[in-house]
Amino acid sequence: MRAVRVTDQRVQFDADYSAQTRSDCVEVEVIQAGVCETDLQLIRGYMGFEGVLGHEFVGVAKSGRFAGERVVGEINCACRNCPTCDAGLPTHCPHRSVIGILNHDGAFADTVWVPEENLHAVPDSVDNDNAVFTEPIAAAFQIPFQLNLSGYQSIVVLGDGRLGNLCAQVIAAHGKSPLVVGKHVEKLKRLQKLGISTRLLDDVEESRFADLVVDCTGSPSGLLTAFQICVPRGTIVMKSTFAGETGPNLAPLVIDEFTMVGSRCGPFDKAIEALAQKQISVTDLITARYSLEDSIIALETAQKKDQLKVILNVQN
Amino acid sequence: MRAVRVTDQRVQFDADYSAQTRSDCVEVEVIQAGVCETDLQLIRGYMGFEGVLGHEFVGVAKSGRFAGERVVGEINCACRNCPTCDAGLPTHCPHRSVIGILNHDGAFADTVWVPEENLHAVPDSVDNDNAVFTEPIAAAFQIPFQLNLSGYQSIVVLGDGRLGNLCAQVIAAHGKSPLVVGKHVEKLKRLQKLGISTRLLDDVEESRFADLVVDCTGSPSGLLTAFQICVPRGTIVMKSTFAGETGPNLAPLVIDEFTMVGSRCGPFDKAIEALAQKQISVTDLITARYSLEDSIIALETAQKKDQLKVILNVQN
Repeated sequence: MRAVRVTDQRVQFDADYSAQTRSDCVEVEVIQAGVCETDLQLIRGYMGFEGVLGHEFVGVAKSGRFAGERVVGEINCACRNCPTCDAGLPTHCPHRSVIGILNHDGAFADTVWVPEENLHAVPDSVDNDNAVFTEPIAAAFQIPFQLNLSGYQSIVVLGDGRLGNLCAQVIAAHGKSPLVVGKHVEKLKRLQKLGISTRLLDDVEESRFADLVVDCTGSPSGLLTAFQICVPRGTIVMKSTFAGETGPNLAPLVIDEFTMVGSRCGPFDKAIEALAQKQISVTDLITARYSLEDSIIALETAQKKDQLKVILNVQN
Repeated sequence: MRAVRVTDQRVQFDADYSAQTRSDCVEVEVIQAGVCETDLQLIRGYMGFEGVLGHEFVGVAKSGRFAGERVVGEINCACRNCPTCDAGLPTHCPHRSVIGILNHDGAFADTVWVPEENLHAVPDSVDNDNAVFTEPIAAAFQIPFQLNLSGYQSIVVLGDGRLGNLCAQVIAAHGKSPLVVGKHVEKLKRLQKLGISTRLLDDVEESRFADLVVDCTGSPSGLLTAFQICVPRGTIVMKSTFAGETGPNLAPLVIDEFTMVGSRCGPFDKAIEALAQKQISVTDLITARYSLEDSIIALETAQKKDQLKVILNVQN
């Protein structure tokens, strides 16, 4: 099958990849896949991943209880048979594979293998261009899952990119009014059109005014900004990771007694429901589309500052 | 007066220092002062502090409502007239000075100036060797102030030094059974004598077993250990700071969805009560005593691996 692989920090399109079949998984024929910042970090060596990239997708299940239906899939493939899984934390299973990220071929390919319990049917009201955003929207929904947003008065989202946009929309969908701080006028304008307040990073005052800061920058500098604008004993949610050995010195965490919360994958059911109810606007975020054959160009495009979501049309 | 000053990362004993008098403070004649890891970091450039060192002390108030009484003093000197103070967070007042740490001469001197509202009378049942530990014990009591310890099953304190010892004792006084992980056999033995479980760092298994980790190591490596032993969605309390530009990459915070809580100064009333009720054993931690004149040797001694608390006897 066709697949986009990373090997030794190099990406290649393979027209005839011998896929790892997985007997414990359902074969899903990929319709569309989305490029995520994590894919770009994986290419730079994050997690030391080797294999087929891609963890945001919509496809058609080939077998099992969803056979013939459009599906999206959670990416953490748990053993379902260890203390962590028994404790209700399958996304943290120490034996897990993660689709397109850890020991599991991903969805930049004709086919991806997904455990049946990870699959969710896509309602007819949610088209492919929306459904392909389910995974990152679910990640944004992890924030209200972890924190009671009603307890915060001044919420700032750092980063106007793909993830920052979705986190801001999810927070707004919970009745709060986040301020998105970013570096890109055009990306901030997109948020303004959705009724979300924005500010250029250079225009942010040096005073502390946020009691919740969500860092979606994918850069060590995001946390430094968070330390500057967060009130003492405020909360900083870390949504994004980055490659490299070091991060900032954490002395401000101690001095200002911040609480930092790491936040990763989230509830797919909430994301699908939000898409079905048109609570989250995503198709405007699609700034480029490529065929699977042009995936190398697609990945290069996704790194450009003016891009938001780059889509791979796997089935043409 | 006599004072121990740090200027441009150099410490000196000054037999005739012209003290900064503070009209808004009470003059306290220092009896004893304790050397803290923060003092050693300040000498290395932490906070860029210049002035008289020392923030752990017991003395006698020369005026005000505690005149003639033995007192200990909270170190954050707040303006009591800003939104942060009004919100009940004077220890986080942006206009504060901090005794011996930030824009405020400290207690390695004949006299220290302390706002009257920061002072606490020392009960007769608490002698000077105990009272001088009030400030670091209060810092340890900040942990149960910030977190409900009853919610945790497996608590690990990283670091067998001064702060780790006190944090472990305070956690034990709350009915929990912390495990102290350290590098120093003799220091761990002291904790064992108090009925506290210990383990050498080299003997710690690689599995995740702690749902609360308290980092008292004063080293970037402490957080790396915490990331290894903390269960997913577990809590890591950061008690200690260190000089330097960088810390570890925080990808594990995101991947394992840890909560990190910065924790600094704590409630003096709880510390004094614990000392009065002999809940915390501290005099065994005193491994050396020096006169103020010998403070340079005292500070060098405090850096040695076999030392715990070094005391300066200011009044001989």
